[in-house]
Amino acid sequence: MAETTAASGRTPDSTRRSERSRRAIFDAALALVGEVGFARTTVEGIAARAGVGKQTIYRWWPSKAAVLLDAYLDLAAGAAEDGEAALPDTGDLAADLRTVLRATVDELNDPRYEAPTRALTAEGVVDPVLGARFVERLLEPQLELYARRLRAAQDAGDVRPDVDPRVALELFVGPLTHRWLLRTRPLTHAYADELVGYALHGIAARP
Amino acid sequence: MAETTAASGRTPDSTRRSERSRRAIFDAALALVGEVGFARTTVEGIAARAGVGKQTIYRWWPSKAAVLLDAYLDLAAGAAEDGEAALPDTGDLAADLRTVLRATVDELNDPRYEAPTRALTAEGVVDPVLGARFVERLLEPQLELYARRLRAAQDAGDVRPDVDPRVALELFVGPLTHRWLLRTRPLTHAYADELVGYALHGIAARP
Repeated sequence: MAETTAASGRTPDSTRRSERSRRAIFDAALALVGEVGFARTTVEGIAARAGVGKQTIYRWWPSKAAVLLDAYLDLAAGAAEDGEAALPDTGDLAADLRTVLRATVDELNDPRYEAPTRALTAEGVVDPVLGARFVERLLEPQLELYARRLRAAQDAGDVRPDVDPRVALELFVGPLTHRWLLRTRPLTHAYADELVGYALHGIAARP
Repeated sequence: MAETTAASGRTPDSTRRSERSRRAIFDAALALVGEVGFARTTVEGIAARAGVGKQTIYRWWPSKAAVLLDAYLDLAAGAAEDGEAALPDTGDLAADLRTVLRATVDELNDPRYEAPTRALTAEGVVDPVLGARFVERLLEPQLELYARRLRAAQDAGDVRPDVDPRVALELFVGPLTHRWLLRTRPLTHAYADELVGYALHGIAARP
């Protein structure tokens, strides 16, 4: 196969074929983990569904967890192309947070993301090594975008200077994730808006 | 075996034996699910570890999920005997919430609870039916305790009257659970205290 020459020097054709295989492997991996869960997803199953040899997968990834994580990062990167490299900064912190949390609600409710996100998150809950890689490669970079927006709001005088942005962001992300993962109540735009109001202004009565 | 007469009329001895079997089954179920996860826990495995026949388990529970859920509810009820039938109400809402969240931090960091709680939560994330039972039987009753304490605080004028207690409680429970489940950062008393302050007073600057 053309891919065997990948390490040495690629022709345009072999690069195209490699990219096509990579795409097929990612699609197969995400579909499979969404359907049967992490435990029952195998490299053999991914290869069969993608129409490639098992060795093609092992040439690029050491394990099923590695393929799945890359497939998921690729999916998340695709979602981020809609302009999420930074959180919006219109100068109105509450409005910007509502925009971001509403978009997150839509993404979590999108079937394309829901099944693989649940499968990988659940596996990370019980497997500390996979969990740590998921957090390091996917979650913390996302959380850093919130921290950066909150720091800008501090500079603008909209967030109290004594607040730690890395902790404060969990007031937004934590409840949303909790509601989604445990399915306690519907995850809606109205909820996202309510959450922003509560987290920014607190629930205590003011003197 | 004595248990076969359970439905008709029990002697004190058979009741004691049944209780001993039930205890052994719960202990075995929790140990096993913590060690090998939900998928690889079987009724056969629980029976072997508990030293009872498989039929003893099937006489009382229809499925492995049912045994595990009851075992976990029993564990949680044991923890609640330390006085958690209601949240403390000393009149100082912030202090009471710090007490409760610190106790939750201790429980989540306790190895006896950690492994089975992770295993069952992870399974609920990918299995909506089990997840719904977990929420209905265990989580919502716990959350209702928070809602009740926040309603009392509203009556006392400590929480704004326009706040929905069922939504507001997620500001406390959500971030704590998020941090624990995804292992983003250490789950400490200091974090519990910080969270209470942020959620009660918000992070926005005040005019």
